[in-house]
Amino acid sequence: MDERLSRTAAAIAASGADWVVLTRNDSVAYATNHIPSVEIGSSPFAGGPTTALVSAAGICGVVAPNVEAGSAKASWAEFEFYEGYAYDHDFDPIENYLDAVESLARRLGTGGKTAIEKEAHPAALESIFEASPTADFHSEFCRVRATKTPAELQLLRRAGEAAAVGQRTFLTALRPGSSELELFSDARKSIENACGERVAVTGDFVSGVARTSSVSGWPLARRVEAGDPVICDLSPRVAGYWGDSCASVACRNPSKGFEKLFAASRTAIGRAAEIIRPGLKMSELDAELRGIVASHGYAYPHHSGHSLGTAPHEWPRVVPNETAAVEAGMVLAIEPGAYHPDAGGARLEWMFEVTATGCLVLTPFDFMQSV
Amino acid sequence: MDERLSRTAAAIAASGADWVVLTRNDSVAYATNHIPSVEIGSSPFAGGPTTALVSAAGICGVVAPNVEAGSAKASWAEFEFYEGYAYDHDFDPIENYLDAVESLARRLGTGGKTAIEKEAHPAALESIFEASPTADFHSEFCRVRATKTPAELQLLRRAGEAAAVGQRTFLTALRPGSSELELFSDARKSIENACGERVAVTGDFVSGVARTSSVSGWPLARRVEAGDPVICDLSPRVAGYWGDSCASVACRNPSKGFEKLFAASRTAIGRAAEIIRPGLKMSELDAELRGIVASHGYAYPHHSGHSLGTAPHEWPRVVPNETAAVEAGMVLAIEPGAYHPDAGGARLEWMFEVTATGCLVLTPFDFMQSV
Repeated sequence: MDERLSRTAAAIAASGADWVVLTRNDSVAYATNHIPSVEIGSSPFAGGPTTALVSAAGICGVVAPNVEAGSAKASWAEFEFYEGYAYDHDFDPIENYLDAVESLARRLGTGGKTAIEKEAHPAALESIFEASPTADFHSEFCRVRATKTPAELQLLRRAGEAAAVGQRTFLTALRPGSSELELFSDARKSIENACGERVAVTGDFVSGVARTSSVSGWPLARRVEAGDPVICDLSPRVAGYWGDSCASVACRNPSKGFEKLFAASRTAIGRAAEIIRPGLKMSELDAELRGIVASHGYAYPHHSGHSLGTAPHEWPRVVPNETAAVEAGMVLAIEPGAYHPDAGGARLEWMFEVTATGCLVLTPFDFMQSV
Repeated sequence: MDERLSRTAAAIAASGADWVVLTRNDSVAYATNHIPSVEIGSSPFAGGPTTALVSAAGICGVVAPNVEAGSAKASWAEFEFYEGYAYDHDFDPIENYLDAVESLARRLGTGGKTAIEKEAHPAALESIFEASPTADFHSEFCRVRATKTPAELQLLRRAGEAAAVGQRTFLTALRPGSSELELFSDARKSIENACGERVAVTGDFVSGVARTSSVSGWPLARRVEAGDPVICDLSPRVAGYWGDSCASVACRNPSKGFEKLFAASRTAIGRAAEIIRPGLKMSELDAELRGIVASHGYAYPHHSGHSLGTAPHEWPRVVPNETAAVEAGMVLAIEPGAYHPDAGGARLEWMFEVTATGCLVLTPFDFMQSV
């Protein structure tokens, strides 16, 4: 049994449930390795979310529309495909989805206490499952996903490398007159070329003092001018796993103010690389990084970092109130920043894989790469 | 009152309901003009789907996470934002979402018979609304959305122009040695540049006899060779509205087989432009186009076309069993194709706006543009 499935089964058991109905795309991807595409919102060819049924004993099945059959190869689950697309006869995709869930439930022998993901569980499924209000599957599932399996570490290394490819392209291509959209597009193109497939990308791309000092935003037609600070935060999803990264750089001649912002972030992320090791509390890591930026005279209105995997942000987060400790096998994206309305912003982010004694950088690009 | 909101209200009344809870992103976008991004699947910063409450009298509100506040400007709805993102204190996004829905429901005065979108309505909402099993809002909503308002026609013309920009880029850039991914990426870049913003794009990009004869697929690293057929289907989402388009072309020297496939599709879509007018039944349009392709000795295993708007595919579809008629104000994407295992595939798609007496092409690119 794949270790992700056995960990999912363990989380079901720990929550006191017998079965879980998974309806979030990141949950389905984790438990089954079936990776639906995420780029267009509600699919017109589906009657409900791609849904997994998993038992505390590790029985595992997926209900997916027929258009997802091609991407089901890498999964270890039993599949029930339903007609979400057809053209030569009448059909109702919602009824087909419900019939398929009912059929898979019968085939797998669901029963007993059933946990659900209540924020993403379609009301239509209530004719099939009675959800147990007591099973707190969510927090157990977060915990088992926080450290990564060997297969996941491979996937996250690949996602980190993909993010780094994009950053190297950005840092090489940046010059006065380039538009934010063009730079973002070229970074994405290099990621897709390196991966040999379409890659969903989220993140931020902002340039100039006003936009970078307000932390985040998607790229616009704005053209970068000499001296502008630029923040490029690239988070690509490769084979279902998210990478994350952020570079901040001035286009040609940095202002004194930007140099100070950059130095604050650079010192903080350098310190993260030195101190991340098993046992360190997330709150301590957060306090250390915020303290460094504060000692430079700045602050950042966001988390210091987060875990990631089949979701772009996962538990635990590197925030003041998080008492969980760093563990070997975690992958953390760390992203201290410094912002000032007169100078702009600088945020630097690498992914770190936590080892038995320290950490490794999974996003091999150089923040200082000359441009 | 915006005409989309008044049509939504009319659909609620026609279904026999007093209120509807909208939880599909395309439905929310239609009724409220609030356009959440769709590119990354489940948001890590949300406790549930962005949700609209609309009454049969046209009262309208939206519950959205705080990270969507920036994109709420163009909406006419009342808003209730909740904390989906925070870093300096403990919070539960799902509880925050539910509290916000409850608060908005109180503020707007919901009550009476409530319709829901059962395939996308989170189970968590059942503590707040009791769904009416009798109200068939879905089919009424499809009907009012099938013809477009003047504001929507503007948006769809812009989406069609964006698709055409991508196709012209593709047709100009295609040459032996280009990879599918590079060509797709360059088309997308030109669309984003023309729109001045990030644009979600779906569709297909396949090259070579084997891939084009199997109709659909996302771009891969495969390099196009001289003589290869290429199908480029681009569907961009601009300001919440989807465009759609498809070009098929041989890279340099077309084979005799490809020329025949192309001629079949070209004749069919040319005929569509001649005959689309109010009163023509979708089934008749479908039969006419299939008949033309059949008279050339080919067939296509997909619909002949579809309506589109805030969803990439909407009712009505151009399929054999659809008895609805073409109406003025509809926008239809028409896409006849011809496929053969030895020659590949050719599918041609334009968007048509239906006028009182005929139709206009909304995707101004030339299928025959020399490459």
